[in-house]
Amino acid sequence: MAEPRLPSWNEGAVKSAILDFVARVTKEGGAEFVPPAERIATFDNDGTLWCEQPLQVQLFFLIDRVKELATKDPSMRERQPFKALLERDHKTLHALGKQAVQELFAATHAGMSEEDFYSIARTWFAAARHPKFDRLFKQCTYRPQLELLGYLRENGFRTFIVSGGGIEFIRAFAEEAYDIPREQVIGSSGKLHYEMKDGRISLMKQSELNSFDDREAKPQNIGLHIGRRPILAFGNSDGDLAMLRYTRSGPGARLALLIRHDDAEREVAYDREFRLSPLAEALDKAKEYGITVVSMKRDWKTVFDSNVSSLAV
Amino acid sequence: MAEPRLPSWNEGAVKSAILDFVARVTKEGGAEFVPPAERIATFDNDGTLWCEQPLQVQLFFLIDRVKELATKDPSMRERQPFKALLERDHKTLHALGKQAVQELFAATHAGMSEEDFYSIARTWFAAARHPKFDRLFKQCTYRPQLELLGYLRENGFRTFIVSGGGIEFIRAFAEEAYDIPREQVIGSSGKLHYEMKDGRISLMKQSELNSFDDREAKPQNIGLHIGRRPILAFGNSDGDLAMLRYTRSGPGARLALLIRHDDAEREVAYDREFRLSPLAEALDKAKEYGITVVSMKRDWKTVFDSNVSSLAV
Repeated sequence: MAEPRLPSWNEGAVKSAILDFVARVTKEGGAEFVPPAERIATFDNDGTLWCEQPLQVQLFFLIDRVKELATKDPSMRERQPFKALLERDHKTLHALGKQAVQELFAATHAGMSEEDFYSIARTWFAAARHPKFDRLFKQCTYRPQLELLGYLRENGFRTFIVSGGGIEFIRAFAEEAYDIPREQVIGSSGKLHYEMKDGRISLMKQSELNSFDDREAKPQNIGLHIGRRPILAFGNSDGDLAMLRYTRSGPGARLALLIRHDDAEREVAYDREFRLSPLAEALDKAKEYGITVVSMKRDWKTVFDSNVSSLAV
Repeated sequence: MAEPRLPSWNEGAVKSAILDFVARVTKEGGAEFVPPAERIATFDNDGTLWCEQPLQVQLFFLIDRVKELATKDPSMRERQPFKALLERDHKTLHALGKQAVQELFAATHAGMSEEDFYSIARTWFAAARHPKFDRLFKQCTYRPQLELLGYLRENGFRTFIVSGGGIEFIRAFAEEAYDIPREQVIGSSGKLHYEMKDGRISLMKQSELNSFDDREAKPQNIGLHIGRRPILAFGNSDGDLAMLRYTRSGPGARLALLIRHDDAEREVAYDREFRLSPLAEALDKAKEYGITVVSMKRDWKTVFDSNVSSLAV
């Protein structure tokens, strides 16, 4: 007997829609056959491939980086916005606004080479643990989604991440966690500066933004990086809506999926109230836009790998 | 007996350097072993993978597009810079300068969706022939380089194009000609605009430049698109020098190659005098920068596939 497909997905309309879609686009000679070169699948990352609550993982990283920098430069503890961040003074942080966010990212995500940043992020991923789910952050990926990525690749798809998160931050763990190579990760990015120092050339990460990969920027960056309209896309918020609609609006078979976090017991339940990436229009208009809504509670047999915390060192 | 490796490369120091490099980085347990994920090879396109004389292929395309547009809008024949282009009035074109170039690209490479542009370019590639080499443009690729791309991939490399040419123009033929998927093509790009029209969403090509992928922009775009320093790079002009030096300046085994067009009989002989992409610093300092110079005349047994024109329909 064949291996069961997508074993962590419960039987039902959603699982059937996925299996049916893959069967149709891979059936040689079929009316909806799609050549392998055109089998592009794009996935949002935060809240779609791994958890994003109570904070996006990159913000845990940012906080840990500020703590680390402050041990080397204690004067940071008295300077805003670092002071407010270290003291968990959310009111002041909020009042400092967008400028504070830029300064926090500049201090933690710029001023080093791309390669040094990878090294910093990989070191962090090797040991940092999620405060709620009691496991390494890099193990906070969703089991059903890992199966789906693998299943698509077995069927000739190329799988891409298209995330609002930092492109280098995601690349630092995506190969290991998702088996997705760096060049198949698209994300928000800062400018890179070509620099020669002591005879060695590096790409230095600048604080100036290159692209904030959210909303309409997602399909635009798909155009730049991939050059082909996906036939399958998966997201979880209004930030993914442009990508989902772009995917759906191509000719032939298309599948756009939206995960709904409605599982307070195994993960978190939230939709509209999560300020960072709200889910409102995508949910209200899913039917009109031809988007298949996935319920974590109903459609996923498991959420995370079980017992992973005991395996993690 | 095993198939001969790189049969269109003549025996000699260059071929040995390539074979030796690949052997070292793929030898498991060897001192210079490179894991497959890190085997990134980047190639310039014009003059490195295919011919660029007497004009870059994209300019032949541009001229044909202007001719085509002028049949629909004859008033273009009286308007600059189209008039000068159609009348081959190089003096006027030159006097019109950079502004003229921008207008010519805007008229032929913008104002349509990315998908429509692919379709226009693919239609052109299906029939357009090189005036000197008597074959389809898409067959003006260099036989030894096709072998090298394939040989690298057989050895676990991922092969990328990093070109000053237009990203969509190259993508329109790279899959077929080089077996390189669209997402492994990096090039100069214009902005893309997310647009909904008659319920269909498209990415509309804008005339505004996003990135001119030349010189320092090549390693910067490698950082953005690939996120990893290549271990092998191949170019043919000073526009590739930053990419070659970035490649060389990483730790471990590295190979940077520079092709010299010195074969007037089988292709064209030119270095410094080709204004569009001069070769001067890269040639003068090849030794100092650790760049291996490839002589087309000395190192290539064949340049193009023979008899291809009779095969082309």
